[in-house]
Amino acid sequence: MPTDLEISRQVKLKSIKEIIDQLGISEDDFDYYGKYTGKIKLSVLDKLKNNPDGKLILVTAMSPTNFGEGKTLTTIGLGQALNQLGKKGIIAIREPSVGPVFGMKGGAAGGGHSQVLPMEMINLHFNGDFGAITAAHNLLAAMLDNHILKGNDLGIDVTNILWNRTMDMNDRALRQIVVGLGGRVNGVPRETGFVITAASEVMAILALAESRTDLKKRLGEIAIGYNYKQEIVHAKDLQANNAMAVLLNDAIMPNLVQTNENTPALVHAGPFANIAHGTNSVIADKIALKLADYVVTECGFGSDLGAEKFFDIVCRKNPMWPSAVVIVSTCRAIKYHGGVKSKPESLLYEENPEAFKKGLGNLEVHIKNMKNLEFLLLLQSTDFLKILLPR
Amino acid sequence: MPTDLEISRQVKLKSIKEIIDQLGISEDDFDYYGKYTGKIKLSVLDKLKNNPDGKLILVTAMSPTNFGEGKTLTTIGLGQALNQLGKKGIIAIREPSVGPVFGMKGGAAGGGHSQVLPMEMINLHFNGDFGAITAAHNLLAAMLDNHILKGNDLGIDVTNILWNRTMDMNDRALRQIVVGLGGRVNGVPRETGFVITAASEVMAILALAESRTDLKKRLGEIAIGYNYKQEIVHAKDLQANNAMAVLLNDAIMPNLVQTNENTPALVHAGPFANIAHGTNSVIADKIALKLADYVVTECGFGSDLGAEKFFDIVCRKNPMWPSAVVIVSTCRAIKYHGGVKSKPESLLYEENPEAFKKGLGNLEVHIKNMKNLEFLLLLQSTDFLKILLPR
Amino acid sequence: MPTDLEISRQVKLKSIKEIIDQLGISEDDFDYYGKYTGKIKLSVLDKLKNNPDGKLILVTAMSPTNFGEGKTLTTIGLGQALNQLGKKGIIAIREPSVGPVFGMKGGAAGGGHSQVLPMEMINLHFNGDFGAITAAHNLLAAMLDNHILKGNDLGIDVTNILWNRTMDMNDRALRQIVVGLGGRVNGVPRETGFVITAASEVMAILALAESRTDLKKRLGEIAIGYNYKQEIVHAKDLQANNAMAVLLNDAIMPNLVQTNENTPALVHAGPFANIAHGTNSVIADKIALKLADYVVTECGFGSDLGAEKFFDIVCRKNPMWPSAVVIVSTCRAIKYHGGVKSKPESLLYEENPEAFKKGLGNLEVHIKNMKNLEFLLLLQSTDFLKILLPR
Amino acid sequence: MPTDLEISRQVKLKSIKEIIDQLGISEDDFDYYGKYTGKIKLSVLDKLKNNPDGKLILVTAMSPTNFGEGKTLTTIGLGQALNQLGKKGIIAIREPSVGPVFGMKGGAAGGGHSQVLPMEMINLHFNGDFGAITAAHNLLAAMLDNHILKGNDLGIDVTNILWNRTMDMNDRALRQIVVGLGGRVNGVPRETGFVITAASEVMAILALAESRTDLKKRLGEIAIGYNYKQEIVHAKDLQANNAMAVLLNDAIMPNLVQTNENTPALVHAGPFANIAHGTNSVIADKIALKLADYVVTECGFGSDLGAEKFFDIVCRKNPMWPSAVVIVSTCRAIKYHGGVKSKPESLLYEENPEAFKKGLGNLEVHIKNMKNLEFLLLLQSTDFLKILLPR
Repeated sequence: MPTDLEISRQVKLKSIKEIIDQLGISEDDFDYYGKYTGKIKLSVLDKLKNNPDGKLILVTAMSPTNFGEGKTLTTIGLGQALNQLGKKGIIAIREPSVGPVFGMKGGAAGGGHSQVLPMEMINLHFNGDFGAITAAHNLLAAMLDNHILKGNDLGIDVTNILWNRTMDMNDRALRQIVVGLGGRVNGVPRETGFVITAASEVMAILALAESRTDLKKRLGEIAIGYNYKQEIVHAKDLQANNAMAVLLNDAIMPNLVQTNENTPALVHAGPFANIAHGTNSVIADKIALKLADYVVTECGFGSDLGAEKFFDIVCRKNPMWPSAVVIVSTCRAIKYHGGVKSKPESLLYEENPEAFKKGLGNLEVHIKNMKNLEFLLLLQSTDFLKILLPR
Repeated sequence: MPTDLEISRQVKLKSIKEIIDQLGISEDDFDYYGKYTGKIKLSVLDKLKNNPDGKLILVTAMSPTNFGEGKTLTTIGLGQALNQLGKKGIIAIREPSVGPVFGMKGGAAGGGHSQVLPMEMINLHFNGDFGAITAAHNLLAAMLDNHILKGNDLGIDVTNILWNRTMDMNDRALRQIVVGLGGRVNGVPRETGFVITAASEVMAILALAESRTDLKKRLGEIAIGYNYKQEIVHAKDLQANNAMAVLLNDAIMPNLVQTNENTPALVHAGPFANIAHGTNSVIADKIALKLADYVVTECGFGSDLGAEKFFDIVCRKNPMWPSAVVIVSTCRAIKYHGGVKSKPESLLYEENPEAFKKGLGNLEVHIKNMKNLEFLLLLQSTDFLKILLPR
Repeated sequence: MPTDLEISRQVKLKSIKEIIDQLGISEDDFDYYGKYTGKIKLSVLDKLKNNPDGKLILVTAMSPTNFGEGKTLTTIGLGQALNQLGKKGIIAIREPSVGPVFGMKGGAAGGGHSQVLPMEMINLHFNGDFGAITAAHNLLAAMLDNHILKGNDLGIDVTNILWNRTMDMNDRALRQIVVGLGGRVNGVPRETGFVITAASEVMAILALAESRTDLKKRLGEIAIGYNYKQEIVHAKDLQANNAMAVLLNDAIMPNLVQTNENTPALVHAGPFANIAHGTNSVIADKIALKLADYVVTECGFGSDLGAEKFFDIVCRKNPMWPSAVVIVSTCRAIKYHGGVKSKPESLLYEENPEAFKKGLGNLEVHIKNMKNLEFLLLLQSTDFLKILLPR
Repeated sequence: MPTDLEISRQVKLKSIKEIIDQLGISEDDFDYYGKYTGKIKLSVLDKLKNNPDGKLILVTAMSPTNFGEGKTLTTIGLGQALNQLGKKGIIAIREPSVGPVFGMKGGAAGGGHSQVLPMEMINLHFNGDFGAITAAHNLLAAMLDNHILKGNDLGIDVTNILWNRTMDMNDRALRQIVVGLGGRVNGVPRETGFVITAASEVMAILALAESRTDLKKRLGEIAIGYNYKQEIVHAKDLQANNAMAVLLNDAIMPNLVQTNENTPALVHAGPFANIAHGTNSVIADKIALKLADYVVTECGFGSDLGAEKFFDIVCRKNPMWPSAVVIVSTCRAIKYHGGVKSKPESLLYEENPEAFKKGLGNLEVHIKNMKNLEFLLLLQSTDFLKILLPR
């Protein structure tokens, strides 16, 4: 079986110019980043405002295992399938983080014949977005420490600071550090740490912002710590949000790429689902809904976590609501939830009708939860490949 | 008098497509980054290898003052002038660092009617180069700390490590820190610090590398510290250089922009001249020499520092030698070196023939030094605007 | 009512010479520390070895409250009472720690007319014992860090060290620190902290040691951390225990003082009962048993904690067993355990028969536990002052 | 040749009782610390105030070498000699620090037949003095950090604190540390360090204090750091000096011991001469001058450093002035200053008249300096044993 990389290299990519032509985006509303990627300017939203919105399809999953159940793969594949059926479909997914993998192995960009491409660009510092988020996050930290050093007019309690620093690198030695050493010239000592960029609050804010104005406002509301009166101090108290927004000027524009089958895909923002809401950017969703009849997007972990966050956080802030939900499931995960051990892994591939039957209970609850929300419910199994509940 | 920003906004920029057409670069050898900037692929070097090299003009200065004497301005202006004279001229200069200025004020990209544009892109995280260099630098640091934590097979002495971390931010609190706190899960505690990205050794290496192969080799030679036997440990001992090179895959390609007068300009790499050699990339120079009759480049500080480093480091490694040297001087700097105080600044603008005469001694030595190297010597004064020694 | 200090100042102390004469200790077996205190040499044990042992009375308590129930007071008072009854009785209690109180307020040396004196000496750095324990503890730490710096032949894992430092001071800023900063000359950085001297393992060891030889052996068995093979490294692996024992040469000798009524009292060692076994030194107990017919000693907290530790740790190692146990109780504590709130404190002093009845359940269990051990059980209430169960 | 230890063990010590009897000190003015040492109460000063002062002899040296030239030995020997001549002489010297030697080898207490004894007590935690000084020093540090944590009413700048911590241990890992880690409960993080107790400012203060009142006042004047207005904050601003003085209550009393020949010796306080004034306590000198006809004391390093400090600091504050100065010199040091290398050491023992002659220049300057002060000048050579200039 060929690897993802081998498959991706055999793909005949269209130039991104062809993709934007096909989507009806003018070159004035697009910034090229190489031949195969680029960023859609936010001005396009105004131009397309009279277009009707397409239908939104949300891909989620049963309770996942360590192996991953294939949500991104299903999302991309579904978008490809819709296009093969002659529908105008767009995929809208998250940017992978270079951090956990040191940029050396495949990221979270699908697999097999359902990948977003060009893989190398998407998996490395993709059009500068993570770099810009990192810079904006760390600018606030630098301004905070500088403020404390220069007299601390806001009375910020150095033992009660909430804002950390960030780096798009899985660098454990930076998780817990002491900064500001070396005397007055370098600052006031304090304990802090770095998180990975995907865990930055700026990443979550970028993904939730509806416009550059909204972004700047949300950045200003960041709680950076407490003052000596136990009141919260915000980023706007340091006048940091304008400068942060300038650094995010390009990063806020969604990236456009394509799949193995040249299906357009917006890949934009990548907040973690465990600590943030875990979905791609609202702006990308909104643009996609104006450009296509069907927008396939995904959320993190199982439906009880990621889908709930999508409904509770993303949809509450924006006039969006999925027309259908897809619950990705696998025989492997069903057997796992039926009690089969995951070590050795081969146990999960053995036939085991009893465990399978027992494990269906997990899936059943996910289905029930989603039906409570009155969705047209699709059940996509990446190993059955059989749609169970087409209502 | 209009500001630099106001001037830049009145400029009618050509699309970068027009610029590469004018230079004779094929779209296959170019990656667009937006409409007005892009990166020249290294493949162009092979295609142009039979072109004769143009003439190299090096812009340096007399001993500079805190005000800056206008080397970048002169470099850009000279490139523009050559084009107005009907010559095919290209400018090759350094990328400004966003760090010292928080991305909020104009960087080192010329001024007045001699700027490189678009200013905002060049002054912010320009085509991801500083981000990529930061990532490569910090990847090595993370691999180093991870190696120590995972048994330290190389016997690296944690009290004798040379490699730090970097961030494109003037964040003083990070200059001296203790990392690896919080117990075994986070690493082995040690003292280290961050430098600004322009001070990263990776920046200097990128600027000196002649090819991707050479880059990888140079990265491998980085001395990261000493082992317990007092032997130097290198980046290649950690097998870090391949991954670092992958992260620099795009950053190694020179950025192409234009001036107010649409003169092509390569803006690439930005090592500091005080701690490194301080010039733009060798690759940009080499490409520029194949594309134009005259290439105007600059080096840091006065001729005794920056020009010396250019001859001793850059030219020793590459078959390049300037055909002419321009020494930028100002009445202000001459009077300063003649003993006029710089506070209040107005003193430097008063007529003072005695101090001026005395200060010419400084300029004289710079001229003499450059003449010793048998250059065709130009003396450019950004306030006289009179060429003194056209030999 | 006069304060403890006022009472103590009216006491006519005997010279310590008179006390040792009365006990039959020769000046050759005694080191004077001022006129009213001194240390009994261990040589006395050998000289008295043919004396029969006296009876040991252990003072413990019902579950204590924050107010303290008066165990030390009862212990001292009981010793005084025995002497008033014409019995030869000695008190053997712990040394108070100067740490928690900065040496500025009364320590744990009884109160009212049942104090050990001279108060100022006992409450401050009493005959150098805590200083010597601190020095021995910190010597091991210094030798440990020095060993790591000088090549770490034992392969000690700096992230897995168990040994801390100590100071007889409640200095919170030292609880969690990073040491070894400032480069190779100062050591290898690592996280560690200080505990108060009463919490030092050396304090517990001194209290349990039976002789100087045993002390040295026990010091050698201290687990200081793990090596890279996950094996425990001991103090003797650093050859630290001999030097530590030298530093403890005087501290191992019990201190002799007197009460308000000139009753002899051995005050020696002070390990905390929450983290260690919490009783005065075994050597003091053994000497006291040779010198008197009745030795009254105490243990920490309630009988479920302190008395259990006395039986399980102290008596298991030594041929000692109490002939009687006294359980100190107070109406206040009984009411508290019957459900009366402790704020405002006045609530605990109001008559409340219902709560009192309910709270007796606590006392009952302590009595039952001690009876299970078949003791002659005394029940001493410091506010009733009535012995309930003289069997 | 017998070692110092062997010699000391053959000495027949007098009981300290005999020594005080011989000096005419009442037992009421003396606290015993064991049989052979004790502390003289300050009350003695008042009782002896009408006694005439004895003559003070100051022992200093030519520029010393790494080997030590024998100042303490000479001081002790001179005191012994005076007694053999039938004069009433007392020696007054510094206490050795246990720190640098881990309490395991001989300290600075003379040698051969001119030692102060009992060696073990003097070399270990001698009568608790260093422990008390350590406690007082660290109490101020703990109060300082506690003040900062509890609101910092004095506005102390945590990056500009002058007060460190101390330990009587050569523990390099504590020289540079970060304290206050672990969050608000433990304090405000800051950089600090430990010095050895002999380098504590409290040690210097104790040595200079004239009385308990003066001690308290001097402790209050300690500069602990700067506030945010760049004003000095003192120990008295924290009300720390009273508690510190309580901890030093015993340490301020001079220790009395004897030499091999039973000559009385006051051994008290031990500030380093490189960072402090480097002499024993003023109180010991003053008491000694009342008790004897001749008091022999010493100061640190060469006469240009230690003697100068004695005249400039100690004598300026107190009505004391040496009647004679002894400059200790050795052939070895003279040859060294004449240019002979010290490695291999044997070179210094070879006859070398030329180097000797040249090296006498060093001694000459020391003599000249002392003569300028119009002293009766003795020149004591510990290897010639010949007095050169008895004027």
